[in-house]
Amino acid sequence: MSTLLEHGRTHDCGSLRAADVGATVVLFGWVHRRRDLGARIFVQLRDRFGITQVVFGKDLDAAAYEAASGLRGEFCVAVKGEVVARGDNSNAAMATGEVEVNATELQVFSPADTLPFNVADDDKLDASEALRLKHRYLDLRRPSLQKNFVLRSRLATLTRITLAEQGFLELETPYMVKYTPGGARNFLVPSRLNPGMFYALAESPQIFKQLFMVAGMDKYFQICRCFRDEDLRNDRQPEFTQIDVEISFATPERVFAPIERLIRRAWSEVLGVTLPDPFPRMTWAEAMNRFGSDKPDLRFGLEFVDITDLAHKSGAKIFEAAKLVKAIVVPAAHSESLSRGRIDKLTELVKKRESGGAKGLAWAKVQEGGSWTSPLTKAISAEFQAEISARVGAEPGSVVLVVADEPHTVHAALNALRLELRDSLDLVKHSGSDPWRFLWVTDFPLFEKSERGYVSSHHPFTSPRLDQLALLDSDPSQVLAQAYDLVLNGNEVGGGSIRIHQSDVQAKIFQVLGLSEAQIQQKFGFLLDAFRYGPPPHGGIALGLDRLSMLMCGAQSLRDVIAFPKTQKGTDLMTGCPSGADDAQLAELYIGHRDLPATPES
Amino acid sequence: MSTLLEHGRTHDCGSLRAADVGATVVLFGWVHRRRDLGARIFVQLRDRFGITQVVFGKDLDAAAYEAASGLRGEFCVAVKGEVVARGDNSNAAMATGEVEVNATELQVFSPADTLPFNVADDDKLDASEALRLKHRYLDLRRPSLQKNFVLRSRLATLTRITLAEQGFLELETPYMVKYTPGGARNFLVPSRLNPGMFYALAESPQIFKQLFMVAGMDKYFQICRCFRDEDLRNDRQPEFTQIDVEISFATPERVFAPIERLIRRAWSEVLGVTLPDPFPRMTWAEAMNRFGSDKPDLRFGLEFVDITDLAHKSGAKIFEAAKLVKAIVVPAAHSESLSRGRIDKLTELVKKRESGGAKGLAWAKVQEGGSWTSPLTKAISAEFQAEISARVGAEPGSVVLVVADEPHTVHAALNALRLELRDSLDLVKHSGSDPWRFLWVTDFPLFEKSERGYVSSHHPFTSPRLDQLALLDSDPSQVLAQAYDLVLNGNEVGGGSIRIHQSDVQAKIFQVLGLSEAQIQQKFGFLLDAFRYGPPPHGGIALGLDRLSMLMCGAQSLRDVIAFPKTQKGTDLMTGCPSGADDAQLAELYIGHRDLPATPES
Repeated sequence: MSTLLEHGRTHDCGSLRAADVGATVVLFGWVHRRRDLGARIFVQLRDRFGITQVVFGKDLDAAAYEAASGLRGEFCVAVKGEVVARGDNSNAAMATGEVEVNATELQVFSPADTLPFNVADDDKLDASEALRLKHRYLDLRRPSLQKNFVLRSRLATLTRITLAEQGFLELETPYMVKYTPGGARNFLVPSRLNPGMFYALAESPQIFKQLFMVAGMDKYFQICRCFRDEDLRNDRQPEFTQIDVEISFATPERVFAPIERLIRRAWSEVLGVTLPDPFPRMTWAEAMNRFGSDKPDLRFGLEFVDITDLAHKSGAKIFEAAKLVKAIVVPAAHSESLSRGRIDKLTELVKKRESGGAKGLAWAKVQEGGSWTSPLTKAISAEFQAEISARVGAEPGSVVLVVADEPHTVHAALNALRLELRDSLDLVKHSGSDPWRFLWVTDFPLFEKSERGYVSSHHPFTSPRLDQLALLDSDPSQVLAQAYDLVLNGNEVGGGSIRIHQSDVQAKIFQVLGLSEAQIQQKFGFLLDAFRYGPPPHGGIALGLDRLSMLMCGAQSLRDVIAFPKTQKGTDLMTGCPSGADDAQLAELYIGHRDLPATPES
Repeated sequence: MSTLLEHGRTHDCGSLRAADVGATVVLFGWVHRRRDLGARIFVQLRDRFGITQVVFGKDLDAAAYEAASGLRGEFCVAVKGEVVARGDNSNAAMATGEVEVNATELQVFSPADTLPFNVADDDKLDASEALRLKHRYLDLRRPSLQKNFVLRSRLATLTRITLAEQGFLELETPYMVKYTPGGARNFLVPSRLNPGMFYALAESPQIFKQLFMVAGMDKYFQICRCFRDEDLRNDRQPEFTQIDVEISFATPERVFAPIERLIRRAWSEVLGVTLPDPFPRMTWAEAMNRFGSDKPDLRFGLEFVDITDLAHKSGAKIFEAAKLVKAIVVPAAHSESLSRGRIDKLTELVKKRESGGAKGLAWAKVQEGGSWTSPLTKAISAEFQAEISARVGAEPGSVVLVVADEPHTVHAALNALRLELRDSLDLVKHSGSDPWRFLWVTDFPLFEKSERGYVSSHHPFTSPRLDQLALLDSDPSQVLAQAYDLVLNGNEVGGGSIRIHQSDVQAKIFQVLGLSEAQIQQKFGFLLDAFRYGPPPHGGIALGLDRLSMLMCGAQSLRDVIAFPKTQKGTDLMTGCPSGADDAQLAELYIGHRDLPATPES
């Protein structure tokens, strides 16, 4: 029974062509589809590389034909036979469609029960995601998912090759690390050898990669797992993968260059797409000003136009008190479907808290000459209407949408509006331009203000711009960081910064953050120790490999590029995880259950 | 102060040569050594790539000279200057020794306190390992350790490139997985979102990689972390890294080929060593028979010779009842130091429980003609002495060492003896042959016998040899597995097997192991479910990247190739980990402390 296995396949199921006609071949694969026409049984044999049609007939080989009559979907089999031309019956939709294999031998490696869902009809998949996750090993047979993982693997390999070529060392950092009380984002691991003590699962290699720089490793990278015990929103996973990079003697440009190089190479080799060199850069301030977002989607227009001065002079009461008035213009080509009803919906959108909570949305349909059809025509003279129309570049038929409010409200509301219009008006498709818009957003604010005072926008080792150190005393809110994000089509795919290596600057930052000496020592003591011994200037970045893969694949969910993902409840439906633990094991770890809800599941 | 940083280095500290004389260069690095000769200050500037001598003088640049007088060891600095020839003062021991840099500018990136130990004197390091681990970021500056991590990084990169070229996909498996009560080797992670439930940290990707095969991924690899909560012996770590491989439609040879290819390539490109193609193979039975070990060190001789028949006929009482009598011969060239006292020590060794617990060690020094000087000369006739000498190939001056006992005792005792003689007689050095002896050991027994009955030698998915299925009923102890280890110089560096994909064979194995249906379902239910849907024949292997790197580097400990290792108590002396957790955090995880020792450290 193992003869063909020992012989080995001569080809995979995606490789036979007309040039192979006449060859005797051995193929291994799964029964993708099977049609029994009596005298002939046709089997589409599938593996990761493609599909080949195999023909069984009594006249071709009686024993093989007999065996083939017992085949069902997803049996795993070996076939030996002769490659023949299909001639007029060629199937242009299949890479192997010019040929088929007349089978002379069939061996069944293993049979298959009826599948819980059909993997062959990848396009019309109707199984629930829960059912597919429970049988993930079958879900992953679907050609569309396999394609994702082939692509992800290539992205990872190209990343490694490209960084290694540029002198980066791939170095590993521990996953079981020091737990720092106070943060709530760590998974904990009780230590059996150290009673009452816990490890944390590393949420990132941040501190270790900085220590690599102190150690003189010069350029480090790692594709590593990170762990965060967060409430899982739609597209989060408790463990995720990042491309982690750190560089000694870094400037932002010295970080951008190798990252751009690996992304350009991956897009070129995997997708055949030539990306610009260099990627465009935009300061955070400009991004907020033009798009109201620190991750602007540049694939379409609808940029914001500041009309504060005109609005104030217009005499309209609703604009009078607003600190900022900005507009976006929906061009005539796309504005037709913006009925009164649609605009009412958009008004509701901008009023939502998560969209900025604006007080309202003003709108105007622009006529010939620049005057408006709008609820505002009574409040604003035709002259001002035309002046505003000219300022925002509105042509007849355009719809102008205006929000007047506090700056951050205006930006948040118009950003929400812009993205909603992108989706509902299908603007990316219509804009027809470059579908891959990478962008570096730079010069983020160093701090954010919270109720408790200043907190770091990124992390407390982020370097301020060195020309702004004086502002740390006078107005920390104005200090810009040497921090940057890599944005793709409106998604943040990476972020990083130049780090602080000067102890005086670090001390000042801790002071602004209001950290006590004890807190500093507990949280960062060993890092500050390290920085006493000649740390080099350094900086780095981390890219989300999951998200980058997802966007590269055109997938809709991270779960489509993670082989064995967890649900939003952090469960694995296939293995039934997490699960209860026996008490003896818990005792060994010096822990016990407590405060379990009334009907514990364990 | 940031001018030279913004300018960037023109060279690293290992690259300047005579051809660069006259060039103006910028170097970044650490003050490795500093000699102040008054008119001249010499600084050896070090980075990961090498060391360059920099010269400061008032005549060269007064400001730079002034600044240089404040330099101390391990300051991190930038230097600008002109490359000049050292001429007669060339230092052939340094790659850059033909030149030095006359400094015209010096910028200090960061100063350094006096180091807790000297990293410049790498050869005469006298700091304790505990001190070095506490300041690991300094320990890692030592050139000898840096070399290890450069090498490890190259091994990992070459592994990935070589496997990717051969059609392997690098796929990721989860680290937070299902915990199966009963095993004591898993770290547990309490789930906040699922009260009372726990994840386990994956001890290997075994089941997931087999599911990748069921999913049709064809060829998988991953360099991944594994976690085991074991009592840490000298050279174990709670997390370690393996090169994990699985192949569909596999035979052992189809597993060996890609692994050999990556190792041959790594040894060739990194060490300049040409390894044999293919590596030698040896069955487990032969390895035990010839070397008493399933991981024989082939760099030297001292093979076992079976003299049971002669010993039984010899008339010596001590051999009479022994099931097996085997000898090893220490050639005359190395036997000189084997005094009576030494032999008494060897006798103690073979009697130790961990060396097999033999009853004793017989010995004989061979004379001209084959007769012996030995305590046995009264018991054994000169004729038999000569016959045994001839059988074992002993020449005059050789020492014959004999153990007579149960077979497993004989093998264990002679193996311990052989390895002790290797080390004490420095046999590897004297044998002078190939220093890299890779070996595949194949056909391991499928089961081991324990008090509880049969247990799997590897894991319960290991396939028996298919020609021995009948023995599963009649005598499981005789069944050989399609399992194999990769051995290097007496170290197991990898192991794997062909897996069972046939449900009837798997059921039979579970029966031999005495597993109940409930146990089977709880432990492996989802894997057996998966195997109902056309699993392909498959097999794989896992290589220990840490151990392979250690051997490749010639390092003595895994801690020399793991950047941030843990101690034998599972602690990280640098960060102070594991540590206590605050009660609020534990409450969120529905766990509490219990049964802490009298003086808990938390």
